[in-house]
Amino acid sequence: MTSIKTYQVRGKTIGGSRPLICAPIVAKSAAELPRAVAEILALAPDLVEWRADYLAEIEDGPAVLAALAGLREGLEAFPLIFTCRVDREGGASSIPEERRLRLIGEVIDSGKADLVDIELCTEEGALRGLIARAKAKAVLVIVSNHDFKATPPLAEMVERMRREQELGADIAKIAVMPTCAGDILDLLAATREMREEHARIPLMTMSMSALGVISRVSGATFGSAITFGSGRAASAPGQIPVAELRAALDILEGKAKA
Amino acid sequence: MTSIKTYQVRGKTIGGSRPLICAPIVAKSAAELPRAVAEILALAPDLVEWRADYLAEIEDGPAVLAALAGLREGLEAFPLIFTCRVDREGGASSIPEERRLRLIGEVIDSGKADLVDIELCTEEGALRGLIARAKAKAVLVIVSNHDFKATPPLAEMVERMRREQELGADIAKIAVMPTCAGDILDLLAATREMREEHARIPLMTMSMSALGVISRVSGATFGSAITFGSGRAASAPGQIPVAELRAALDILEGKAKA
Repeated sequence: MTSIKTYQVRGKTIGGSRPLICAPIVAKSAAELPRAVAEILALAPDLVEWRADYLAEIEDGPAVLAALAGLREGLEAFPLIFTCRVDREGGASSIPEERRLRLIGEVIDSGKADLVDIELCTEEGALRGLIARAKAKAVLVIVSNHDFKATPPLAEMVERMRREQELGADIAKIAVMPTCAGDILDLLAATREMREEHARIPLMTMSMSALGVISRVSGATFGSAITFGSGRAASAPGQIPVAELRAALDILEGKAKA
Repeated sequence: MTSIKTYQVRGKTIGGSRPLICAPIVAKSAAELPRAVAEILALAPDLVEWRADYLAEIEDGPAVLAALAGLREGLEAFPLIFTCRVDREGGASSIPEERRLRLIGEVIDSGKADLVDIELCTEEGALRGLIARAKAKAVLVIVSNHDFKATPPLAEMVERMRREQELGADIAKIAVMPTCAGDILDLLAATREMREEHARIPLMTMSMSALGVISRVSGATFGSAITFGSGRAASAPGQIPVAELRAALDILEGKAKA
């Protein structure tokens, strides 16, 4: 097993022995963000991902940056991931690609997010440019890949995570859809193989939908550092509410009484 | 996928879509059994396994049968498994093999146990004889195999379960020890392969110790019909207390609020 980096972000250790719980914010307008902040404070996840692509104002750059500044202030204690998911990988907006990439760059420069998520399918020059810009600002980059229809072959999933790492990701992510129990085993096996044979960075992997739910609680065993728990709403199929996810992880770790 | 038999035993369905929780009784003397009964009533598992090999009086046949009759009466609502585990597969007694097999036969004839567990390593003629005797008495037989040191290769685990099924088992069981995350994947993959490609009967599989704990909650996904939860004491390494096991299964099934 190679040695895996860990990151200390606002008191949390990403890449430690227990998976961290990340809750998504999927507010549809800036007006809903205060309520989203209150909900996160009540849920107390380990990290927060703002899925900005859900926001009606997503094409208004200054409005998005102002909203982000508000979230940063309201969620001071939480590592904050900024994500504007591209539509073909499950994003909720069809913002033009050039504008989307410019926005991610501006978010990096603002210093208001601790991490940004950028898809592996992004044009390579633009992706490398954003990663360099993030490194200069000490913003961590999750390079991500999503398949909402199927689970690629095991070797292909490992290859995608290796490619994410080679491009300079601080965290490599894949989220795939299972169609049978064997697909879940492939995702878990790809995670194990990546962690034990190739990874120098933490991984985030998940097999989506109710069928894949076991992948959301098995990160400590197979090597996924962050797992998503839902708040009022989920940002992908199969997410368990944060409190239940925490309870299940406690039980599996031998730390809880039910 | 072949069609898998299910069994209705005292109101429980063995082989249904959700794994049943079995709690072990590991009382060291007949005098401790009333307390064990009270504990089971409080835990309310789905099934109970009496590990008679823990009993000091195990070589006194009439005393064991009397103790079993007492358990049967005290635990009327629970499917009851009688197990006198052979020492080389984790048993707590060194009762001579001939006497052990005679006792299992007497237990079958008594009709006081709903199920009996017999190891695959039992001499084949004796094993077949006990299985025939159990079928005549409508007692279900778990044919089991345990490795407390390691995890055999995936194909070997499937082969052992197929052999258990061919010998006439009503339920096929393997319990193995992982030494790495890959071993756990092998146990889960063997379970999935057996269920989807070969099994006509329910399976019970587990990867033991804290490392293998995920296998105790993933039965619905990969195909294990019964999972062990501990009461006051565990009967094998890695068992989670019954209440926590139930909570974890509820969460993964989407049926619980933490």
